[in-house]
Formats: sequence, structure tokens, C-alpha cells
Amino acid sequence: MAFAPAMTLPETDLTEIDAVANRLADAARAAILPFFRSPSLTQDNKLAAGYDPVTEADRAAEQEMRSLLARMRPDDAILGEELGDKPGTSGLTWVLDPIDGTRGFVSGTPTWGVLIAVRDAKGPFYGLIDQPYIGERFIGAPAHAHMTGPMGHRDLSTAPPRALAQATVFTTFPEVGSPAEQEAFHNVARQAKLTRYGMDCYAYALLASGQIDLVIEAGLQPYDIQAPIAVVQAAGGIVTDWMGEPAHDGGRAIAAANADIHKEALAILKRAGP
Amino acid sequence: MAFAPAMTLPETDLTEIDAVANRLADAARAAILPFFRSPSLTQDNKLAAGYDPVTEADRAAEQEMRSLLARMRPDDAILGEELGDKPGTSGLTWVLDPIDGTRGFVSGTPTWGVLIAVRDAKGPFYGLIDQPYIGERFIGAPAHAHMTGPMGHRDLSTAPPRALAQATVFTTFPEVGSPAEQEAFHNVARQAKLTRYGMDCYAYALLASGQIDLVIEAGLQPYDIQAPIAVVQAAGGIVTDWMGEPAHDGGRAIAAANADIHKEALAILKRAGP
Repeated sequence: MAFAPAMTLPETDLTEIDAVANRLADAARAAILPFFRSPSLTQDNKLAAGYDPVTEADRAAEQEMRSLLARMRPDDAILGEELGDKPGTSGLTWVLDPIDGTRGFVSGTPTWGVLIAVRDAKGPFYGLIDQPYIGERFIGAPAHAHMTGPMGHRDLSTAPPRALAQATVFTTFPEVGSPAEQEAFHNVARQAKLTRYGMDCYAYALLASGQIDLVIEAGLQPYDIQAPIAVVQAAGGIVTDWMGEPAHDGGRAIAAANADIHKEALAILKRAGP
Repeated sequence: MAFAPAMTLPETDLTEIDAVANRLADAARAAILPFFRSPSLTQDNKLAAGYDPVTEADRAAEQEMRSLLARMRPDDAILGEELGDKPGTSGLTWVLDPIDGTRGFVSGTPTWGVLIAVRDAKGPFYGLIDQPYIGERFIGAPAHAHMTGPMGHRDLSTAPPRALAQATVFTTFPEVGSPAEQEAFHNVARQAKLTRYGMDCYAYALLASGQIDLVIEAGLQPYDIQAPIAVVQAAGGIVTDWMGEPAHDGGRAIAAANADIHKEALAILKRAGP
């Protein structure tokens, strides 16, 4: 595919990127966990019209990660959910979402995550999804995809093909996006065996783990999807927008376990139009 | 309330029940976890018409728990999801659901649970909700409600009153139950600040933890709801059916953090009729 993970970085640089990303994720865990399920959690409303709580934890974690990057990767750019853009000169950008799934976070669910991606001009080639409370970390890089968690270390590999009628599809909210996007999602979901909601970024980790077949979302920001793209692709899956084009700029995304189910679901989603 | 937790058991017996329940939950964890996220997981379809996978893990865990009860509590009755009724002579019944949330389980989500309740003629007075993968256990008994998990030990206490317009409501599927039940649920959810799906029994644990305000479900079996009832009530919450009557025989349930929000939501649900 034209948007396959970039393979141009030397191995030593990938090793360093992986080490730095794990340092960032460790720092984010330490910054966020004291706030999780804390009665004193304070919330802002970022969007006046909607409901998008931003917590102190969110900001504290991003600040910690940016401080580490300033010291360890000063030439790289940063795109962060909370604290904006920092330009760089290396051609690499760290894409940070300290708490993906803030609604789940403020509800106490253990399925929000810290998202860290590294991208070049072609798109994200390294991704990390961390669930601090469970102590799970899912990593996708060009040479490998693996996870660590309560049951130890496992390589990640997406599921083999099965028909949509036998498949499990996830999205975060039944409303998905616009009314047209909602209809397109449910046109796929109605043909699937099982549809589940409420997992936020954790759904992409389940896809990379071979547990489910499809994740379909709309209304995404670039920082929501870049780490999931790298993790899912490294595990053997495919992530595109609903027209089959690269999804790393956000908007609509379909993440699929394999090319067969991607093709079957994409044919339905495409009817929603651009 | 007429269906408050029974307080007639002597303290020594409650201590023993708690010890036995924890032994059962430990055994269930050990029986289930080797199957969780295993590629070799085999599934049956219990209901020909629907989708209700029963796993080897489910049966293995219930068998382990029943063997322990046969040795440690031979005079008590057992009601188990998978292996049926065993009569007793003590007046106490152990109510077992080895994997509540089998659809979540087969999708790899970490929000299914082992449910263990003990009831007498009045209803459940002891409840345990265990999430083996995370290593979390929520317990409610007449004298106390507490949990242990990755961040240690905490007492459980439901949230103080806030209006439905500020509240968070959970259910497992947007379809909820019958079309009339679905409509009644969404009549409540539309007035809430936030509605979330997909947590199975874990939603009751979040309610007991003070994280959310309401859990509303329909189509429940007695073994689905008895442990959640005991945990939520011990933490200060209220669980009834949609007419305000006891919910421990299954069917429709509303679990509320406090009497105020219970009253506000129940007034809407009652319009669905009996």
C-alpha cells in the first residue's frame, strides 16, 4: 500500500524512539494515575456546546511528556492534544494524546489510554497505546508488534479473515458522527455478528491483539488515530479512511484485521460519500 | 426499605461467607484466565436464536466453585448459570455467574466479571464482583463495602445526589431489552449528561465506586443481578426493578447511587408499564 509504515529509519534510531516512547508512557502513567477515580478530580468543559472534559491529569501528563522530549529529542516536532504544536527540524513529529477517552476516564472505566505516535512525512510509523490502570502497553513499530500486561508479554497479530456476518465490530458511541456517518456505521454493524461500544482507543488494541475484526469511527483528530494506525498496521491490520485513503489526518477511520474484511466493510462505508 | 440487606446472620457466619466467597473467586480466576484472549477459545451457542457464547472457561470456573462449596458449605443451596440448581437445607443459596459478560469476554474486553452472591429468603445480602484480568475485586456485605485492585484497597461509597441532567448512566447495549424497554431507557438517557455502553457487570462496580450515577438494564437473569445488588446496596446505593420493587429475580433493574436520582429516573421508567 502507498501508506505502509515508513521503513527508512535506521534500526538504531527506531530503538531509541522505542526507548523514549516508553519513558514518556511511564511518565504519563505516573502523572495520570493519582487522578484516576479520585473524588477530587476537577474538570473543565473544553467545548461549550459538547461534553469533552479535560482533566488536570491530561495536562499534567502532556507537560511531563513534552519536558522529556525537550531534553531527549530536542530536534523533533510535537503535536499534542492539550498544549498544541512545537515545530522541529528532524522531520519527525511526536503525536501525543495523554488521555484518549476522557469520558471513559471520568466514568472510571479502565479502557482509556495514553497515545504516543511518531510520524514522518508519510505518516505514523511507531505507535504506543498504554492503559495505566491495568498496566497494559501495546506497541507497534515497523519490525514488531507486541504488548505487555498482567499476563506477561505477547506478540500482537490481527485475526485471520472471516466474513462480516461472523465478525465483531467496535465503535465508541452508537451516534458515531454525523447522521450520515451514523447510518453508514450501522449499515456495517447490522451485517456483523456482534457490535460493541464504549472502549475508546482500547478497541484498536483489541483489534491488534486478534480479538475483534473491525473498529469504525468518525470525527477523529490526528492525535486520536496515529498511534492506533501504527499499532494495528504493525500487527498485520489495515487502517484507512472510509474511502480507502490514509486516515492519519483524522476524520473517519476504519481499522480492519485483514484485507478481506476491510474490503467488505469499506464497500458499505463508501456509500456514505466523501 | 423493605428489601434492605438482611442483617440476621451472626458476624462469625458473615466472616466465613466472605472467606469462602474469596476462595471461590480465586478459583474462578485461575480457571478462567488461561482461556482469556486465547486463540483456542471454543464457543457454543447457548441460544439458537441469539448470540450468547458459553466458553469452556465459564463451565470450568463454575465446576471449581461448586466443588469448593460441596466441601466448605455442604448445607447451602447453589444456583449457577451454567450447571443449574443444587438444593440445600441451610436457608442460604450461593448464586454464581462464572463469566458475566460473555460477549465482552470473547471480544477481549477487560470488563466482564465473576459474580458471586449469597442470599436468604429476603434476597442477596453478600455480593462479590471480580475482574480477574485487571485483578480487581469489589465486595459488598451488610457491614462494609470495599475493593482491592491495582492501586490497592479502597472502601466503596456511591456518589452523592446530583440531578439527572448532570448524571452519567450506563447500560450494556443500546438495544437494552424489548422495544418498549429500549424506549424507556433512552427516555432516561436523553436527559442524562453522559450515556455509556459496553461494561457488563463492571458498570455496577463503577456505581458502587462512586464513579457513575445510574445503571439501567432489562432482560436480566437472577444470577446477573444478585451480586451487583449486594455490592451497590452495601456502598450506599439502591437497586430495584422499574416499578420500585425488589430486582433480585431478574428482569428489569435500575441501580442508583442514591435515593434522589433513583426517584428521578424511576419516574421516567415507570411510564413503560409493568
